[in-house]
Amino acid sequence: MKEIKIFSPATVANVACGFDVLGFCLDTIGDEMVIRKTVEKGIRITKIEGHDLPYKTEENVAGVSALAMYNDLLPDCGFEIEIYKNIKPGSGIGSSSASAAGSVYGINELLGKPLDKTKLTYFAMKGEALASKCEHADNLAPAIFGGFTLVKSAHPLQILELPTPSDLYATLIHPQIEIKTSESRAILPKEIPLQNAITQWANVGSLVHALHTSNYDLIKDALIDVVIEPHRKQLIPHFGEVKLAAMEAGALGCAISGSGPSIFALSKSEATATNVEKAIRDVYSKTDIKFETYVSKINTEGIKIL
Amino acid sequence: MKEIKIFSPATVANVACGFDVLGFCLDTIGDEMVIRKTVEKGIRITKIEGHDLPYKTEENVAGVSALAMYNDLLPDCGFEIEIYKNIKPGSGIGSSSASAAGSVYGINELLGKPLDKTKLTYFAMKGEALASKCEHADNLAPAIFGGFTLVKSAHPLQILELPTPSDLYATLIHPQIEIKTSESRAILPKEIPLQNAITQWANVGSLVHALHTSNYDLIKDALIDVVIEPHRKQLIPHFGEVKLAAMEAGALGCAISGSGPSIFALSKSEATATNVEKAIRDVYSKTDIKFETYVSKINTEGIKIL
Repeated sequence: MKEIKIFSPATVANVACGFDVLGFCLDTIGDEMVIRKTVEKGIRITKIEGHDLPYKTEENVAGVSALAMYNDLLPDCGFEIEIYKNIKPGSGIGSSSASAAGSVYGINELLGKPLDKTKLTYFAMKGEALASKCEHADNLAPAIFGGFTLVKSAHPLQILELPTPSDLYATLIHPQIEIKTSESRAILPKEIPLQNAITQWANVGSLVHALHTSNYDLIKDALIDVVIEPHRKQLIPHFGEVKLAAMEAGALGCAISGSGPSIFALSKSEATATNVEKAIRDVYSKTDIKFETYVSKINTEGIKIL
Repeated sequence: MKEIKIFSPATVANVACGFDVLGFCLDTIGDEMVIRKTVEKGIRITKIEGHDLPYKTEENVAGVSALAMYNDLLPDCGFEIEIYKNIKPGSGIGSSSASAAGSVYGINELLGKPLDKTKLTYFAMKGEALASKCEHADNLAPAIFGGFTLVKSAHPLQILELPTPSDLYATLIHPQIEIKTSESRAILPKEIPLQNAITQWANVGSLVHALHTSNYDLIKDALIDVVIEPHRKQLIPHFGEVKLAAMEAGALGCAISGSGPSIFALSKSEATATNVEKAIRDVYSKTDIKFETYVSKINTEGIKIL
C-alpha cells in the first residue's frame, strides 16, 4: 500500500462533567486526508483545501505530529500529506486534533501498523501542542479510539475506552465567533470549592457507570458541570437559551464542547437529536450570528480508512 | 415474624479517590442487632452490649433512625432494639452507620419490606446525622446495598450500586487513637487546586471503569487521593509507613478509611490481603499504640438476617 485516504472525525472534549479527561467521537463531521509514501525522505504537506493553514511541516499541526512519529520510527521512506479540512479551526470540536491524529494514523497504516493507538495518541499530542500550547489528549483519544474515552493521565499517557450506549446521538451548534484558547483558559479559576469538586467527581463516576449500564436517565443526571461552565458560558452568546431549548426538546444534557464556542447536546435517539437541532437553530436564527448545526451518532470506530 | 436477628457490617467510606461519594462493605466486622415487635407502640433500646452507648431513643443513633422511619410509617405496633456492638465508635469504619442502618433494616423486614433500600438509607441518614452532625450516606449506602456504592447525590438521595470484582479483599488496621470528626473536617481546605480536582475525577472515573471491567491494574492506578489524604494523614501516626508497607506487600492501594483513624488496603486475593495485614502489623507492633487488624472479602450482600 502506497497511498491511503482517511476520515478523521471531529470530537467533543470535557462532556460536561469531565473537564480535561472525557471525550467522545462524532460521525458526520470530519476532515479527509490522503497520506502517500514517497521515495524522498521526510514529511511534506502537499495540499490543503477548505481552510487556510500553513504548508510548512514544522508549522502545521498534522506535520508536527507526523514528524515526531517519523523521527522516532525512522522509516526508509518519506510521506506526503494532503488535508481536506472540513472542521473549522477554533470551533471547539477538535479541529487540530483531527489533523494531528489523521497524519500519524495514516502513516502508521502505510507502515503496517507498528504502533498501538496509545502510542499514536502520544505522537499526535506533539501536533496538538502546536495548536493549543499544551500537550493534551482529550480530543485526540476519542478521535483515535472512537466512542467515549477517559484520559486517566496525560503523563504517562493512559487512555480508557468507555462503552457507548447504542441509541446515543449528539447535536452540535457552532456559532461562528472566535474564542481565543488563551482567554478560555484564563477565565478559569486556579482553585475551586471542594464541595463543587465533590459534585463533579460524583458526576464523572456516575457518567462512567451510566455508560457501562446504558442508563440514559443517569446519563442525564450526570451531564452537569458545576466547575467550568459557570465561568466559560459567558464567552458564548445565548448559551443559556440554547441549553434551555435543548433540554426542553428532550436532550439528556447540553454543555460547552471543549473550550467552545461550539455547544453539544446528547440525546437518546436520532429523532430527539433532530428535534434538539431544530430547537437550538430557532434560538440562533433570531440573532445576527452565523452558525452551523450537526446531528451525529456517536462514532465508535474513530478515524477510519475510506 | 415477631423478632429478627441481623448482622450490620462495617464499611469503608471515600475509598481513596472518592471523598464523600464512594464506599464499600466489609464482611468479617460488624454489629449484631435484635429487633422485636412489641404491642406497646414506640421505639425502645432495651439492650446494649460491647460499648457504652445511650439507651434513650432520641440520643441513640439506631433509635433516631428507627424513630424517623417509625414516625413516617406509623405502624400498628412498637419495636425493641438490642445492640451487640462490635464496631468501636470513632474507628472510621462506619460504626454509627451500622447502628443507624441496622435498626431501619430490621424494622422494615418485620413490617414486610414496605421500603426499598434507598428509602432505608434516607431514614438511616437521620441517625447518622446524630453522630456526625451532617446527613451523609457514604457509609450507609454500602452497609445497606453491599459491595461498592457511589452516592451520586445526598439531596435528593441517589445511590448507584457498582460491581465488585470477585477477588477483591480488604485489609484494615484500627489504631486505637481518637480523631474527632470535627477536627478531621476542620483540617480540610474549603478550596482546592483545579488541577488536583481534575486528577481526582479522572481517578474516580477510572475506578468505576475498573470495577466494571475487573481491571485490577487500573484499580491500583485509580486508588490515589491527591485531595484529602495530604491533609488528613498527619492525624494518623505512622500512616506513611503503613501505606508503604502495604504497597510493598502487594496491595493495590492503601488509604484512610472514612475520616480515620482506621487505614484500609485493597488487594487481589485473600493471600495478598493477609500478607498486607502482616506487613502493617509489623509497623504498628513497633509503637506503643494499641491496634487491631482485619482481613475481609468485600461483602456484596450488605446487612443480612442471621
